[in-house]
Amino acid sequence: MSKILKGAPVAAALNEQIAKDVETLAERGIHPKLAVVRVGERGDDIAYEKGVASRCEKVGVGVRKITLPVDTAQAELTNVLKELNADAAIHGVLLFRPLPKGIDESFVCNTLSPAKDVDGITDASLAGVFAGIDTGFPPCTPSACMEMLDHYGVALQGKKAVVIGRSLVVGKPVAMMLLGRHATVTICHTRTTDMYAVCREAEVLIVAAGRADVVDKSYLSPNQTVIDVGINVNKDGKLCGDVKFAEAEPIVAAITPVPGGVGTVTTSVLVKHVVEAAKKQSMQS
Amino acid sequence: MSKILKGAPVAAALNEQIAKDVETLAERGIHPKLAVVRVGERGDDIAYEKGVASRCEKVGVGVRKITLPVDTAQAELTNVLKELNADAAIHGVLLFRPLPKGIDESFVCNTLSPAKDVDGITDASLAGVFAGIDTGFPPCTPSACMEMLDHYGVALQGKKAVVIGRSLVVGKPVAMMLLGRHATVTICHTRTTDMYAVCREAEVLIVAAGRADVVDKSYLSPNQTVIDVGINVNKDGKLCGDVKFAEAEPIVAAITPVPGGVGTVTTSVLVKHVVEAAKKQSMQS
Repeated sequence: MSKILKGAPVAAALNEQIAKDVETLAERGIHPKLAVVRVGERGDDIAYEKGVASRCEKVGVGVRKITLPVDTAQAELTNVLKELNADAAIHGVLLFRPLPKGIDESFVCNTLSPAKDVDGITDASLAGVFAGIDTGFPPCTPSACMEMLDHYGVALQGKKAVVIGRSLVVGKPVAMMLLGRHATVTICHTRTTDMYAVCREAEVLIVAAGRADVVDKSYLSPNQTVIDVGINVNKDGKLCGDVKFAEAEPIVAAITPVPGGVGTVTTSVLVKHVVEAAKKQSMQS
Repeated sequence: MSKILKGAPVAAALNEQIAKDVETLAERGIHPKLAVVRVGERGDDIAYEKGVASRCEKVGVGVRKITLPVDTAQAELTNVLKELNADAAIHGVLLFRPLPKGIDESFVCNTLSPAKDVDGITDASLAGVFAGIDTGFPPCTPSACMEMLDHYGVALQGKKAVVIGRSLVVGKPVAMMLLGRHATVTICHTRTTDMYAVCREAEVLIVAAGRADVVDKSYLSPNQTVIDVGINVNKDGKLCGDVKFAEAEPIVAAITPVPGGVGTVTTSVLVKHVVEAAKKQSMQS
């Protein structure tokens, strides 16, 4: 029987700390504020925007929603970002992606000031994650994985960590963050041969394959901590992760559920980044 | 008995291709040119500068040497880089590091246009290596490792590659480049436990530990290809790698010597980057 690593207590602990930090900043006249920039009316974006706004409100972080039509010109969008860069009342910016076709996404992302890049979309943030230094911010999902591991006291130094998935939003950054914490890190992917054997050797297994039920019991062994980053909809229309939870739970030492795992923590990480950004900006001004 | 993977034939093949490319570009009136910016009079820098200038001359690539006193102000150095960014006759810039104390190295490096960053020192280049996309250029040493593997026809897809070392100039970028070629990549370092066992499982072992004789026979197994990136001076005053060559050579399938291995290829990679930069810039102008 595994220990179930739920996200809710992790998010609660983060939110408590964030609320304290917001109070402390308020005493100095600083009121952390996030700008959420959405181009178009995609359902997923609107849902996440609501979650973020609600989370911000609960901890006293301001939100400015900027909604642009789907046919917004690239120059108009970059002007919006430039205005936000220059606006001292805004400390962080969340820009939903993918951007509409015809827009040079990389160019637009790099218009954003790295200091306000709370979701790790600029080259400077990516270079910072790669280098293991504090330029910009890492993307929120890999940060949420690390918050989970830390909250539950999972040791990383010298441990064998295996990451399934090599995306720029989860797999690669979480690998670099694990490396920064002195784990020995292996990155697996669809071309990996004998992935079962590689994964069975992991002491910490991060699954970010992006496909339901990729990891069954053949990948798993006792004493492992499994972080399931997947959010998929199964054939019964229910949310599920990348790991076959029912097969994993009797085998491994600890595992995150889906729903109720990493995904629960991501919004709190975003808000934490906004507060950190506000702190840093206040020290520089 | 291993196959010895010498650098000289790799460099020769690269130089031949570079010279052809330079001729083709000359027919279009384009003459690739590298600016080498050196601050101070460090012996290693001067030696590498000579090697680069000689290599460029042999393949018809121009060089402009810019030497600044060790007490150059940061603003002066960034002005030099801005001028080189704006100078259409210069296609690539090599800036020696570390820069003198008191200079914000990251700020100065990011003054350079990524299009001319032929040694991977800007955030955009690093982000490009991390993302596996073609922004700027990767650092020359990890590129040289890949040239060695490709020249000698070492298969990478689905293979187990292990990298010893996690520096930003070799270990991390070579890990990303191997990942881009669909190897399963493990990154080891000083905190890795049981590194012997991890390395023995490698089909391709890249050693960038930066210390003489770190890898002895206990790390090695038959059928491995070993790329030794180390350049150290041993107690007899002779150049040596990070691998105990005499112990490795009877065991592994193939190994690079030191001297005469990866280091031999680095300068040619730099010049190749300059020619590629000239090609790209000519297409954009």
